Amino acid sequence: MARAPLVLTLGDPDGIGPEIALKAHAAIQADGPCLVLTGDPAPLEMSARSLGLPPPVLVKTLGQARSAPRDRLAILPAQGSHPVLASIEKAVELALSGEAGGIVTSPISKASLYEAGFGFPGHTEYLAHLTASAPMEGPRGPVMMLAAPGLRTVLVTIHQSLKNAIESLTPEAVIHTARVTHHALKTDFAIASPRLVLAGLNPHAGEGGAMGREEIEILAPALEVLRGEGLDISGPLPPDTMFHAEARANYDAAICLYHDQGLIPVKTLDFHGGVNVTLGLPIVRTSPDHGTAKDIAGKGVARADSLIAAIRLAAELAANRVRACAHKGFGA
Amino acid sequence: MARAPLVLTLGDPDGIGPEIALKAHAAIQADGPCLVLTGDPAPLEMSARSLGLPPPVLVKTLGQARSAPRDRLAILPAQGSHPVLASIEKAVELALSGEAGGIVTSPISKASLYEAGFGFPGHTEYLAHLTASAPMEGPRGPVMMLAAPGLRTVLVTIHQSLKNAIESLTPEAVIHTARVTHHALKTDFAIASPRLVLAGLNPHAGEGGAMGREEIEILAPALEVLRGEGLDISGPLPPDTMFHAEARANYDAAICLYHDQGLIPVKTLDFHGGVNVTLGLPIVRTSPDHGTAKDIAGKGVARADSLIAAIRLAAELAANRVRACAHKGFGA
Repeated sequence: MARAPLVLTLGDPDGIGPEIALKAHAAIQADGPCLVLTGDPAPLEMSARSLGLPPPVLVKTLGQARSAPRDRLAILPAQGSHPVLASIEKAVELALSGEAGGIVTSPISKASLYEAGFGFPGHTEYLAHLTASAPMEGPRGPVMMLAAPGLRTVLVTIHQSLKNAIESLTPEAVIHTARVTHHALKTDFAIASPRLVLAGLNPHAGEGGAMGREEIEILAPALEVLRGEGLDISGPLPPDTMFHAEARANYDAAICLYHDQGLIPVKTLDFHGGVNVTLGLPIVRTSPDHGTAKDIAGKGVARADSLIAAIRLAAELAANRVRACAHKGFGA
Repeated sequence: MARAPLVLTLGDPDGIGPEIALKAHAAIQADGPCLVLTGDPAPLEMSARSLGLPPPVLVKTLGQARSAPRDRLAILPAQGSHPVLASIEKAVELALSGEAGGIVTSPISKASLYEAGFGFPGHTEYLAHLTASAPMEGPRGPVMMLAAPGLRTVLVTIHQSLKNAIESLTPEAVIHTARVTHHALKTDFAIASPRLVLAGLNPHAGEGGAMGREEIEILAPALEVLRGEGLDISGPLPPDTMFHAEARANYDAAICLYHDQGLIPVKTLDFHGGVNVTLGLPIVRTSPDHGTAKDIAGKGVARADSLIAAIRLAAELAANRVRACAHKGFGA
């Protein structure tokens, strides 16, 4: 059967979202998945004119999108009180129903949404909320993964001060992150026997307690539980020596304890091509790992690398998930 | 005039030190600086036999080392109560007297030295102690720099738990690190107008206080003082987006707040070639950025990349320092 289309959200219309959506569609149209953007077509039409790209084409269903001209980005309008949120809600609805294979979200401006009464810390928490009552196989996240060619990192703590991140670190948080990651690597990444590593928190992973005791008091108990469940997980590893090419060859994902521990290596190696993947949702979701970049919006200079990588990865994850479900008799 | 020889210390004789010393000498003998190892010749003689390399040659003075056969590593014996410390003390003495251009230290085993009564937290603190009464130009460190092609990072805090590192962060510590770095970049690295950047502590550099206040309360006051002194220093920068190739082109050194913030990017990019440089000493000092690696000692498989890079960089720094001194009328 043909693969279900992917849905791309509008994101902040004042950022680089419309421009990179069009550029990404142009880049993948020949060999990529069928892509449909949900939301207000106006910013896309304007951006297409200014970039000299073919205008988008309006569709009423995902079925229509399949037969639209490949060189034109299909847009499925979404109604709602706020255009940015309406786009996300429509995309989630299509993915939950199975009509869409997954969603790729464009960057949003949290500040603008807060002014409009948005009550979630961020994009990911909103998606977790929208999908909270949908059934799913495996442990529920969300867990944030950053994926670049040759390196995947997942985060135990995310958007909080480094001090708070250390204080909020518990064996339970590490265990939960590892379980969600292990399941997602099997199901969505089609890795039969995932190999995980756990980063230490302190220099040299604490050197036996000489430079911090979190490895002994928090990480070791978590590792014991996880190994007891049969997970292949090494660590805690000295954080500075675990991300070079030879080390990376030994694992499928690195569990990192705080934001920059996971993001510094990915963005240092591959600044433009990193993809944000949300693990542990009932739907496949990826997004570029950058923001709205309003400072360069409308100038035609935005790079679509990360969005292109996010679309290609979402297509791969969606196909793997369908195969994993079919294999278990859930149909496809 | 001919450049003064560099002195290499013995390091832990049970680690990979003797092996990589011989390999590094073999690699640089054609075009590198004159290199003299201080200390016990026995482990080097044994290692040369097992590697099938030319045996080292004993010398009594650095002058004799210059006329020794280029294919043989010159060794200047050092007397003292402990062979590892005697080697370091002799090397420092030669560098302080000006006979040697600088020192390159081989990895030591702190555990073995502690058993022998060694009372310093590490190698660097010992070198600072040995050189404390020697006159020097510029602010006194020590400040630890990690240098790889295209990226230099320096550390405000080093070997302490991450929690303690955060708690011990002060504007004064940041200011001191920046001043030492600025001076060393000018004098030793021959960069006329050094460009520094300062990393934030928190995700997204705190996002205006939403995720941590250290950027506002500690880093901003430090930056104000440093800019008031005329230093070219940007920041605080979001730590995850400051180490990719395009970002690195904008600065000569990044001031990092904790061990792994500075070491993860360097070792992720260049695991084998990173060099540890101690800034703010009266003498030039570099070392490989790895340990004694006793697990692979004697097997002939140790890589000398980092030591070779440390020797070449020490030669460059020594030459620059001589030029800087000559320029100021101190003679060379």
